[in-house]
Amino acid sequence: MEQTVIRKLNHDCSISTYSLEDYMNIVKDFHGSVAPGLLIGGFMMNLALKNLPSGGFFDSICETRTCLPDVVQLLTPCTIGNGWLKVMDFSRFALCLYDKSTGNGVRVFLDPPKIEAWSEIKNWFFKLKTKKEQSYDLLIEQIQQAGEGLCSVQKIKISPSLLEHKSHGSTIAVCTSCGEAYKIKNGTLCPACRDGAPYAEQGGPL
Amino acid sequence: MEQTVIRKLNHDCSISTYSLEDYMNIVKDFHGSVAPGLLIGGFMMNLALKNLPSGGFFDSICETRTCLPDVVQLLTPCTIGNGWLKVMDFSRFALCLYDKSTGNGVRVFLDPPKIEAWSEIKNWFFKLKTKKEQSYDLLIEQIQQAGEGLCSVQKIKISPSLLEHKSHGSTIAVCTSCGEAYKIKNGTLCPACRDGAPYAEQGGPL
Repeated sequence: MEQTVIRKLNHDCSISTYSLEDYMNIVKDFHGSVAPGLLIGGFMMNLALKNLPSGGFFDSICETRTCLPDVVQLLTPCTIGNGWLKVMDFSRFALCLYDKSTGNGVRVFLDPPKIEAWSEIKNWFFKLKTKKEQSYDLLIEQIQQAGEGLCSVQKIKISPSLLEHKSHGSTIAVCTSCGEAYKIKNGTLCPACRDGAPYAEQGGPL
Repeated sequence: MEQTVIRKLNHDCSISTYSLEDYMNIVKDFHGSVAPGLLIGGFMMNLALKNLPSGGFFDSICETRTCLPDVVQLLTPCTIGNGWLKVMDFSRFALCLYDKSTGNGVRVFLDPPKIEAWSEIKNWFFKLKTKKEQSYDLLIEQIQQAGEGLCSVQKIKISPSLLEHKSHGSTIAVCTSCGEAYKIKNGTLCPACRDGAPYAEQGGPL
């Protein structure tokens, strides 16, 4: 990884069960770079885990597609493919963890007034400077210094409709157009044949 | 992990750069279990990688939310959080890898006629037996035996609209209702305040 400096901090600088350095290494391996959002996300997860009711099985929601889903996938058992992480793109830098049977949980979000004291975090988050004008090192240093202090936490109750058990009884049919299998809901065409897919098949050898 | 038997196979039984055993271990760590879909997905990825034009930087699409996104995240640099993996839920067990500049790529899908010869794969995929009635061991054994033979591959060209470079110039505003930051598109409310979020804030101590 890049030699990102880890500063001496006054606060707890571990992320979940990892040292800050180890966390930045697993982030680099999975995400491809130590993006600032993954570092902030690590501190957000610390705050969520501290405030989560103990026991129970937890599902998660990310309110943005950017960066945060990878934090949740790295630090919890929730992934996109196992269905325990949902991305609901509300364009907010926030994550929710909740008990999947009761709906009780916590929501942690990056809180704009708390960014005010940190010039480079503000420049980055509100896009007040171009990427070229920003200092990555200063940004990472400020995030490490600020840590959980950038975020606020709320107690939430998830809507019952989101907690309903997924139906495993759905019927699988073969689409009459493409010949592939899909979960039948309406009609005899899969969603791609019904509504269109964003690609065209090309002829010629592979 | 569970002692899932790995059979002696007539075909190449590695998944990407992993031995079958190592792949099943990383699947278990990330996804929580060696789900049949992740094993099939591994062979699908083998087929995709073999047929991918060399060079270039590749983005990916999963046509289902189930299992396959985790295969892509484990075996390629593409993740949900870095934006190189998109999930487009067409309810088809298929994945696409494509050059992000030209749009040229491959699509691999689980091909129903190719499942016919494998009784337990058919029972599982088409939900002809309940989970309790299925034999997990037989299912995994049949998937290992069948391997890439369950899938077909197509040459595709991605639509230009999907290749357009994401705008990094979007303006970040603070929502006039919740006070959180969001990418402004229409109006002064973030999408959650405008359209509703699937949770309510609860009072009382955290």
